[in-house]
Amino acid sequence: MSTRQLVVLGTASQVPTRTRNHNGHVLLWDELGILFDPGEGTQRQLTHAGLPVSRIDHVCITHAHGDHCLGLPGVLQRRALDGLSAPVTVHHPRPAADTIARLRDATPYEATAPVVLRGVELASTAPLDLGPVTLRAAPLEHGEPAVGWRIDEPDGWRADPELLAAARVPGPLRRELLREGRVEVDGRMVRREEVAVPRPGQSMAFVMDTRDCDGARELAAGVDLLVIEATFLDDQRALAEEVGHLTATQAARIGAECGARRVVLTHFSQRYPDLTEHLAQARAAAPGLDIHVAADLDRVDVPPRR
Amino acid sequence: MSTRQLVVLGTASQVPTRTRNHNGHVLLWDELGILFDPGEGTQRQLTHAGLPVSRIDHVCITHAHGDHCLGLPGVLQRRALDGLSAPVTVHHPRPAADTIARLRDATPYEATAPVVLRGVELASTAPLDLGPVTLRAAPLEHGEPAVGWRIDEPDGWRADPELLAAARVPGPLRRELLREGRVEVDGRMVRREEVAVPRPGQSMAFVMDTRDCDGARELAAGVDLLVIEATFLDDQRALAEEVGHLTATQAARIGAECGARRVVLTHFSQRYPDLTEHLAQARAAAPGLDIHVAADLDRVDVPPRR
Repeated sequence: MSTRQLVVLGTASQVPTRTRNHNGHVLLWDELGILFDPGEGTQRQLTHAGLPVSRIDHVCITHAHGDHCLGLPGVLQRRALDGLSAPVTVHHPRPAADTIARLRDATPYEATAPVVLRGVELASTAPLDLGPVTLRAAPLEHGEPAVGWRIDEPDGWRADPELLAAARVPGPLRRELLREGRVEVDGRMVRREEVAVPRPGQSMAFVMDTRDCDGARELAAGVDLLVIEATFLDDQRALAEEVGHLTATQAARIGAECGARRVVLTHFSQRYPDLTEHLAQARAAAPGLDIHVAADLDRVDVPPRR
Repeated sequence: MSTRQLVVLGTASQVPTRTRNHNGHVLLWDELGILFDPGEGTQRQLTHAGLPVSRIDHVCITHAHGDHCLGLPGVLQRRALDGLSAPVTVHHPRPAADTIARLRDATPYEATAPVVLRGVELASTAPLDLGPVTLRAAPLEHGEPAVGWRIDEPDGWRADPELLAAARVPGPLRRELLREGRVEVDGRMVRREEVAVPRPGQSMAFVMDTRDCDGARELAAGVDLLVIEATFLDDQRALAEEVGHLTATQAARIGAECGARRVVLTHFSQRYPDLTEHLAQARAAAPGLDIHVAADLDRVDVPPRR
């Protein structure tokens, strides 16, 4: 069984509360683990979530504000303390490079593995191959230079075991057939479309700290799982616009209008102890959309493949 | 009523657990608040403890290891977010100056008040006047350059209201009499010792991450409240010596042999989920000593004045 799941570590915005830790979201994609925006306390939230720090292969940071990255030193130092030798890559907007380097070297410790820092331009970037998925960024609109992130699994093929057997394709050649599109069996050419159907790749987007903007919509377009900030309610629409944040209504509309299949709202202002109204306003804005108002330590599955 | 109380924010050592946050201890001394060694998550632990960040006037850091200072940026940034205009001073060992400056400037934010960094030598320092108390440091023995801290209230006098009345000292002159030692009343000289008895000042020491050493004992000498690390049990005595830490037995002995009145053990290795044995070994090492094994969010009073 594949595990493709979002683990919510923290749902606060600038100010943590008794029930909400600072930002922190992990995407588990089978063996791959990607940590988004580790706010302060992420190291301990991983423990509360039952996730060892060895599950983190990549870190993606949207911008340099403390509530989105002050947990980075603890995560990196804990990897060293656990003796991990695998490198970890920290992807971040290039203008945040000095901040991220400062956090990598925040306090003295003995590193056991390379920490690779990778700055991206404030633009729609080319996909980077992470193995089972690709990673790309798009610019967001916040006070601080910011990008959102998107994960895409390449489209593939799903073989039909009966058709494979009927076509008499031996086991060792089946992988090659799916990968290459054709394979020769006893002098016959067997083509992929004879024994398999297209399998659309799954996708996920992380859209944090932004106004409604082209980049947010590009990231959200047709994703299976959209994790998106909903700092405010409609009552603070003007404030949201001023400081570069979204309301629950706006977040839900982006999800619906861009065809996201499941939408996770997070990053809530401390002025809202209760989040009932976030769900109500989001549902009113996007009737029928699959909306989840996140709580710390929630686990939300990527929806089953189309 | 005066409040002189230790608020325990976190009792973990390097690795936080489900029940123990990283280090963090606040001393409330009436209106004065001193935060010792803010580890990661201190900002949120203050909320759990019901303490606003405005209660913190000084921060004292023992050394540059992350579990003792990675929470500093969050505390400083939260002060700004709350719009505080009072300056805060961060006292630290001078060799940690670069680390502390890096943490002060970790991520971009708009400061609303000065953050004063004050490095002290790795030596027994002269007392610094903080108003109601003085602050001094003494060197500890850890891998990283480290100092412990001590708070002393100056000795004073406690006036006897009946003797004051009998001596016919008018209200406005009573403060002056206690402060100056004598005052003239209707041509008579009234001396302090005629109407008051000496009032010994209270004291507190914070001894973290060290082997048993002269500095630790100098700090602990005769204090009312000793907060001291007890990372290990006797089974790890050799490891403790090697890495510069104390066992519960050693910590209790320091407390007893130095005449501390109440001893708070903290900074526990994650290898000990249960701390019953810490109390047992400490009690066996120092029978009759007032020992408290700290848990997160505990409040421990400074013992009543002698």
